[in-house]
Amino acid sequence: MTETLTTAPLAIADEVADHLFRTARTAQQFTDEPVTDAQLEAAWDLAKFGPTAMNSLPLRVLVVRTDEAKERLAAHMADGNADRVRTAPVSLVLAADPAFHQHMDTLFPAVPGVRENLDGAAEVREQMARKSALIQAGYLVVGLRAVGLAAGPMDGMDFAATDAEFFGETGWKSLLVVRVGHVEGEGTGYPRFPRLAYDQVARTV
Amino acid sequence: MTETLTTAPLAIADEVADHLFRTARTAQQFTDEPVTDAQLEAAWDLAKFGPTAMNSLPLRVLVVRTDEAKERLAAHMADGNADRVRTAPVSLVLAADPAFHQHMDTLFPAVPGVRENLDGAAEVREQMARKSALIQAGYLVVGLRAVGLAAGPMDGMDFAATDAEFFGETGWKSLLVVRVGHVEGEGTGYPRFPRLAYDQVARTV
Repeated sequence: MTETLTTAPLAIADEVADHLFRTARTAQQFTDEPVTDAQLEAAWDLAKFGPTAMNSLPLRVLVVRTDEAKERLAAHMADGNADRVRTAPVSLVLAADPAFHQHMDTLFPAVPGVRENLDGAAEVREQMARKSALIQAGYLVVGLRAVGLAAGPMDGMDFAATDAEFFGETGWKSLLVVRVGHVEGEGTGYPRFPRLAYDQVARTV
Repeated sequence: MTETLTTAPLAIADEVADHLFRTARTAQQFTDEPVTDAQLEAAWDLAKFGPTAMNSLPLRVLVVRTDEAKERLAAHMADGNADRVRTAPVSLVLAADPAFHQHMDTLFPAVPGVRENLDGAAEVREQMARKSALIQAGYLVVGLRAVGLAAGPMDGMDFAATDAEFFGETGWKSLLVVRVGHVEGEGTGYPRFPRLAYDQVARTV
């Protein structure tokens, strides 16, 4: 159960709050149990409902599954992270799609013309894509946990080299890697580190 | 209940998946019911456990609660968003703290010296802070819903002016505003817009 006294009642069961947040840990060691495409799709099918700017949904996901693909990705990870990619059943390269505007007629019919207006604004689109995609990364970590998978995000990597390796055609921009699987034992590498309390992060006006 | 066929079993109840993701909506109209500090703290006390780079937790929250503070914020919002701030019980200015490294001895004792190493690297710190804080914004939207609050994120605003208005002393960098309250009726402004399917956002290698 929770290590935190709850200051207000939750709308979800304590066990669920534990599973999604309070006792969930960044996984470091994984079992051999495979991660199925159906599980990843189920996680996406939750995370996709999280709000993004103009419903733009710019997050893209490269599922790195084969040994060969793992080596291609490991080559661009910072030292300690290369083996982490090799030993996870699946790693997701989370990326932002600067061409997200191509879908805006469908995704945001409330305001016609967004697609056309953004067409010539490549730099604006990339900034928009990176911003909403990172917020979506937060939703997806929770979504993966909701499907029963452990997530291990990390961003010690060469982003430009990763983009050249995998995203030459799509133009996607890599943001971070999330290792996904089932935790082996404690499987967390570190003990739970402290968090900042509400009065350390919030001010009221 | 869900409008999505689940491709794999969830680790949480369908009703919870609905509440947090599938039927949750970006709120536009709110009731008069107040949002308490205890509720906001409870939402933080979930979201704070989400993983961030080196457990850096750079997200900061300005709780805009008084009419006077709402006017100060509304002055820096894009046209349609000014009234949205005035009519929400509470708006949160989510921000990144480039001085997050001051807490690293406590937050990430695994690697000593992070604080010192980052001390002279203001630009690196700001980029790190923005990135992890946006991921945390995703956790916080889910956390607010878990507490039974509706969230309405928006980022049509003048960030530099907002920073000058509120963050002159702290150096926080505003990222987006999240209106928080209890939804009035349907309260969503728009119908639910389409989402991209898994095969539209994911590739496997």
